[in-house]
Amino acid sequence: MLSEFSLIDRYFSQPAAAFPATDDEPKATLGIGDDCALLAPKRGEHLAISTDMLVSGRHFFPDVSPWSLGYKALAVNLSDLAAMGAKPRAFTLALSMPKADESWLEAFSSGLFQMAKQHGCELIGGDTTSGPHVCISITVFGDVPAAQALRRDAARPGDDIWVSGVLGGARAGLGIRRGEWSMKDPADEAIAIKALEQPEPRVALGIALRGIAHAALDISDGLAGDLLHILKRSQVRATVNIDQIPRSGTLATLPETAQVNCIVAGGDDYELCFTAPVTVRADIERIGKAQKILLTRIGTIEGLAAERRAASGTSSAAQDLPLPLIGWRNKTGPVSLPDTGFDHFHAD
Amino acid sequence: MLSEFSLIDRYFSQPAAAFPATDDEPKATLGIGDDCALLAPKRGEHLAISTDMLVSGRHFFPDVSPWSLGYKALAVNLSDLAAMGAKPRAFTLALSMPKADESWLEAFSSGLFQMAKQHGCELIGGDTTSGPHVCISITVFGDVPAAQALRRDAARPGDDIWVSGVLGGARAGLGIRRGEWSMKDPADEAIAIKALEQPEPRVALGIALRGIAHAALDISDGLAGDLLHILKRSQVRATVNIDQIPRSGTLATLPETAQVNCIVAGGDDYELCFTAPVTVRADIERIGKAQKILLTRIGTIEGLAAERRAASGTSSAAQDLPLPLIGWRNKTGPVSLPDTGFDHFHAD
Repeated sequence: MLSEFSLIDRYFSQPAAAFPATDDEPKATLGIGDDCALLAPKRGEHLAISTDMLVSGRHFFPDVSPWSLGYKALAVNLSDLAAMGAKPRAFTLALSMPKADESWLEAFSSGLFQMAKQHGCELIGGDTTSGPHVCISITVFGDVPAAQALRRDAARPGDDIWVSGVLGGARAGLGIRRGEWSMKDPADEAIAIKALEQPEPRVALGIALRGIAHAALDISDGLAGDLLHILKRSQVRATVNIDQIPRSGTLATLPETAQVNCIVAGGDDYELCFTAPVTVRADIERIGKAQKILLTRIGTIEGLAAERRAASGTSSAAQDLPLPLIGWRNKTGPVSLPDTGFDHFHAD
Repeated sequence: MLSEFSLIDRYFSQPAAAFPATDDEPKATLGIGDDCALLAPKRGEHLAISTDMLVSGRHFFPDVSPWSLGYKALAVNLSDLAAMGAKPRAFTLALSMPKADESWLEAFSSGLFQMAKQHGCELIGGDTTSGPHVCISITVFGDVPAAQALRRDAARPGDDIWVSGVLGGARAGLGIRRGEWSMKDPADEAIAIKALEQPEPRVALGIALRGIAHAALDISDGLAGDLLHILKRSQVRATVNIDQIPRSGTLATLPETAQVNCIVAGGDDYELCFTAPVTVRADIERIGKAQKILLTRIGTIEGLAAERRAASGTSSAAQDLPLPLIGWRNKTGPVSLPDTGFDHFHAD
């Protein structure tokens, strides 16, 4: 039988030295083992908070490497902090599993702490319980000056639309895992599977974009669906040139339609999509060079015609904005793609 | 198919007016709908943070009233804040369920927000996804002056041990739900089931005990197991008089051994167990009277003999303290009860 406390103590209690406190960045004053953890944000800053839930068979294959699962479970949450321009501080973990499988827990916690240490993010609380399936819920905390947080509602007409890295790699990896396709070069398959199973949250990029980017989010559900969140919240529309979207090299041998589907609707890449005024192009290129991250302009934010804004009423949620909000193009002209958003590609 | 955003918007977006900001208690500056919520603790205070996971068939019956489930899911988390002396501020919700059942979601969210409004606790973020079972993970945030937080490691020899309310009612309700027993009076059954399904977190009591109580926690796993956490963390032992433990009236018709089992090992009561010096007895009695909560002294904290402390080494976790740490008594003398801790009574 699982015992909450023995599990927490054995696998999830890290020596404090792994997360040393500094004057500038105090560690949690009280962590695992009490009713609550205690945390204060950096002086004058806010805590950015995000929660995700990952369910076996839905968000990951039941036989995925537990090390990768631990790594990715925290990575996707840190990606939300990155999209906000927040610096990771701490996280809580709630975990259910059918039985206390020690080798699974050892590998899972090892992957989890690998990601945690890379970003100085301390585990401050948790709950482990038995349940019929593996279910992981992580809540992350980061520090950000409130006025510099990269929000979804801050895109402005005239902004460039940027993406980091290359897209479609995680969807290619999912296709391999599902047996939808195979690649000639095993090295390509390994790259695609790593993109799926071990995404790297763009934490340093998000922090560097404070005060430079307008709106930002991370691409978890696919570029089309995620960009739509920015457009709805900012009450704007966009033109995107498909030919400019940087493609994962692993897609090269797939048919063009599959490639486009992967880069436009493939989720799980956890790259950042952000908008920024034309005046800061040089700053952004400098950041990309310094961080060795490909940063690519893929389109432009445009205003909504007044009558379309009126049609949507004054609702800030803008649920009822008339579609389409994204005008897709390639080098030959307009391309017809759905823009009502895409749900996750499901592993089941 | 579940769509994360439509579910969040429809059932879990509350009008801001439900949680008005005041100068003293700013609301979250950014809530549901962005990558992260932004939160700052009250000036000079810390955020107390706690996470729980509730799994269908494990922590609740699959056919439980969804209203009660929403109510209880938040209540058990607020109980952790209460045990810390923290004032509830906000929470995040991660929820998986097999399909988007609208009437279930409506009732669940209604129960959830009933509890949230009672304690001024705002939903600031979440994640909804499909999954094979209902799984609920809530993370709560409260404000507390760090120096006044009620920790588990603060019990001192000579302290009285107190409990709030009456114990065993939730275990009685579980027995009824499982068909283990029935009660002559249907009114008693209703009281016991309400104790199980709609616990009331002792938030006001926790706040009132700041600066008065030494150690505190909430009784979720049963008095014996939970008290043991205080004893291990504080490196002390306890004597508890079973006859002084206040019993739920619903237990009266059960055999004495079943009654003792319910009050000592029955979980889910979410009453507070706390220790406090003898000098503040009058203060505690005054608080109980003001809040109309029964507060009862059930025992005494005692020091560990030096050689026993030495045997446990200097580990703050004190995992290896020699047992038994709790000396159980009744009016006739010592009583033999296990004190190695109890796991949850499971609904499955």
